[in-house]
Amino acid sequence: MPELRRDSILGRWVIIAKERGKRPCDFVIEEEKVKGGFCPLCPGHENTTPTEVLAYGRPANSPPNSSGWTLRVVPNKYPALVVEGELDKRGEGMYDKMNGIGAHEVIIETPNHGETIPMMSHNQLIQLFWAFRDRMLDLAKDIRFRYIIIFKNYGKAAGASLEHSHSQLIALPIVPHRIQEEIEGALKYYEYKERCVFCDIIRQERSQNIRIVCENDDFITICPFAPRAPFEMWIIPKKHNSSYVSMEDFQFHSLTEIFSETMKRLNKALPSVPYNFMLHTAPLRTPDMEHYHWHIEIMPKLTMIAGFEWGTGFYINPTPPEEAARFLRDITLE
Amino acid sequence: MPELRRDSILGRWVIIAKERGKRPCDFVIEEEKVKGGFCPLCPGHENTTPTEVLAYGRPANSPPNSSGWTLRVVPNKYPALVVEGELDKRGEGMYDKMNGIGAHEVIIETPNHGETIPMMSHNQLIQLFWAFRDRMLDLAKDIRFRYIIIFKNYGKAAGASLEHSHSQLIALPIVPHRIQEEIEGALKYYEYKERCVFCDIIRQERSQNIRIVCENDDFITICPFAPRAPFEMWIIPKKHNSSYVSMEDFQFHSLTEIFSETMKRLNKALPSVPYNFMLHTAPLRTPDMEHYHWHIEIMPKLTMIAGFEWGTGFYINPTPPEEAARFLRDITLE
Repeated sequence: MPELRRDSILGRWVIIAKERGKRPCDFVIEEEKVKGGFCPLCPGHENTTPTEVLAYGRPANSPPNSSGWTLRVVPNKYPALVVEGELDKRGEGMYDKMNGIGAHEVIIETPNHGETIPMMSHNQLIQLFWAFRDRMLDLAKDIRFRYIIIFKNYGKAAGASLEHSHSQLIALPIVPHRIQEEIEGALKYYEYKERCVFCDIIRQERSQNIRIVCENDDFITICPFAPRAPFEMWIIPKKHNSSYVSMEDFQFHSLTEIFSETMKRLNKALPSVPYNFMLHTAPLRTPDMEHYHWHIEIMPKLTMIAGFEWGTGFYINPTPPEEAARFLRDITLE
Repeated sequence: MPELRRDSILGRWVIIAKERGKRPCDFVIEEEKVKGGFCPLCPGHENTTPTEVLAYGRPANSPPNSSGWTLRVVPNKYPALVVEGELDKRGEGMYDKMNGIGAHEVIIETPNHGETIPMMSHNQLIQLFWAFRDRMLDLAKDIRFRYIIIFKNYGKAAGASLEHSHSQLIALPIVPHRIQEEIEGALKYYEYKERCVFCDIIRQERSQNIRIVCENDDFITICPFAPRAPFEMWIIPKKHNSSYVSMEDFQFHSLTEIFSETMKRLNKALPSVPYNFMLHTAPLRTPDMEHYHWHIEIMPKLTMIAGFEWGTGFYINPTPPEEAARFLRDITLE
């Protein structure tokens, strides 16, 4: 019999279609063909992107926007929101609108076209997490911005339009609905239990030990109890902390390690599967929150959003998280 | 400059990327090839579906599950939820779950394989709306069910797995999150204004007259002010009514007319575009609500849900609804 499961944070229900019990080999993944051609994100083409806002790895004294970098952040050439202007909140009769003020940046994760996350070295990958922090801290100075979302679209089916490995950052003048809901849901739990819901999730997952994919001293990767998608995973810091940017140095190392292992496991289970990841952290300039806990959500793109999901906010997931976690955990990595 | 717009009901913001101003010809729509082959929904194959729960148009005295029908409703052969069993709500530590009890039915809209909504006659189409009502009234008798969502996935990219034109119905043991949010949002507006937000939307749309696609005496089709997707449309009854099933006879005719016109306009603007439609109505066995208003939402599948949308619940829409509505309105129908 299928099972209805409730997400403890959002109160969102999902249908776990156990019977279908889809394993990795049951999903058809369209192979991503490296098309090649001109790539604006490759070294040597720095002049085809907007002027960089951050670069790592270039020898001292080399000019900005030259090659030699190991990671580079540039404004998106076709931004969803623009930096210049006033917010100008206004009405149109009963409706509300404002100018699309924000920042939209592209984090070029590697100089090597074709190198993907599971192929990257520890040194390469840790730069990515430092860049997230550096850009967040810099953009937080702009008081028009209230939230920064960092995400990655990998593969055409997951929304990537450029092949060269990159993440994106969007700074928003409002706290998005989904984050607000998550924080409010966590607050409700906290008011009732006087404990952080994420800390409780970690505790239960470690005691049940059926949805853990991998863990190290500082982080745990689980398939959440009520996942929207097959092989959905969350990476959660073990020590309570509501904000990504207040992570300590050694945690960047542990995060890099677990992220690398998680993505390698995913890639071995479902080679080249398109995916999205999203970094969920506290809104800008909020004090530490005892009820909220930053984390990363990884969503492989294996199912579709159709009428039922649009109409209800319910998801149908053909792979129980216990089976997904077991599969991912049992994979042997070299 | 892009514009941020807020949905008056849900409080959800969308980014309208005006500059991109994508018109119908800017979207690449993969052609749906009619594959043919064996179709379990075609007349003559009635024995390949589960036993029907409703059929129209068959001559009197002809046996059930024989051909001769003009519309037929059958349980889904691969249901997301099952009818038999107890809900059995229970915990697993801090988590909540229950059995996947529900109904999942397929409404076969026509006996003619290959006939799509815009090709259907008034007489064919009105049966669809009567069938929605008949099935809702019948399933509402089962007190385990609290909500019925009716939806359609057309085209592979919008989640359709069968070619033969059909809608679907899922009866759920809980009121889904998305509907709850909509009802709560509408209630908030009502408490503040003492008016129904949907009635106010109709009033403003008729006075502004820039987002109307078409209308008749009883219904209006608009592109909503803060649409999630290009060419998103809502069909709203002009007379306040929270429940689809309490519609009067003459309204079924008007609904059929406006729905047919709306879908013909969409199909002429964006030939064979994949889409989803969802019927939003009050939860089962609730008294008439002054703050809620049933309606149909139509979402063409032209953009993708990626990391940004997953992470924030925000949508980026490259087509302002004013342009979409103008385009759809200006189309000449034979």
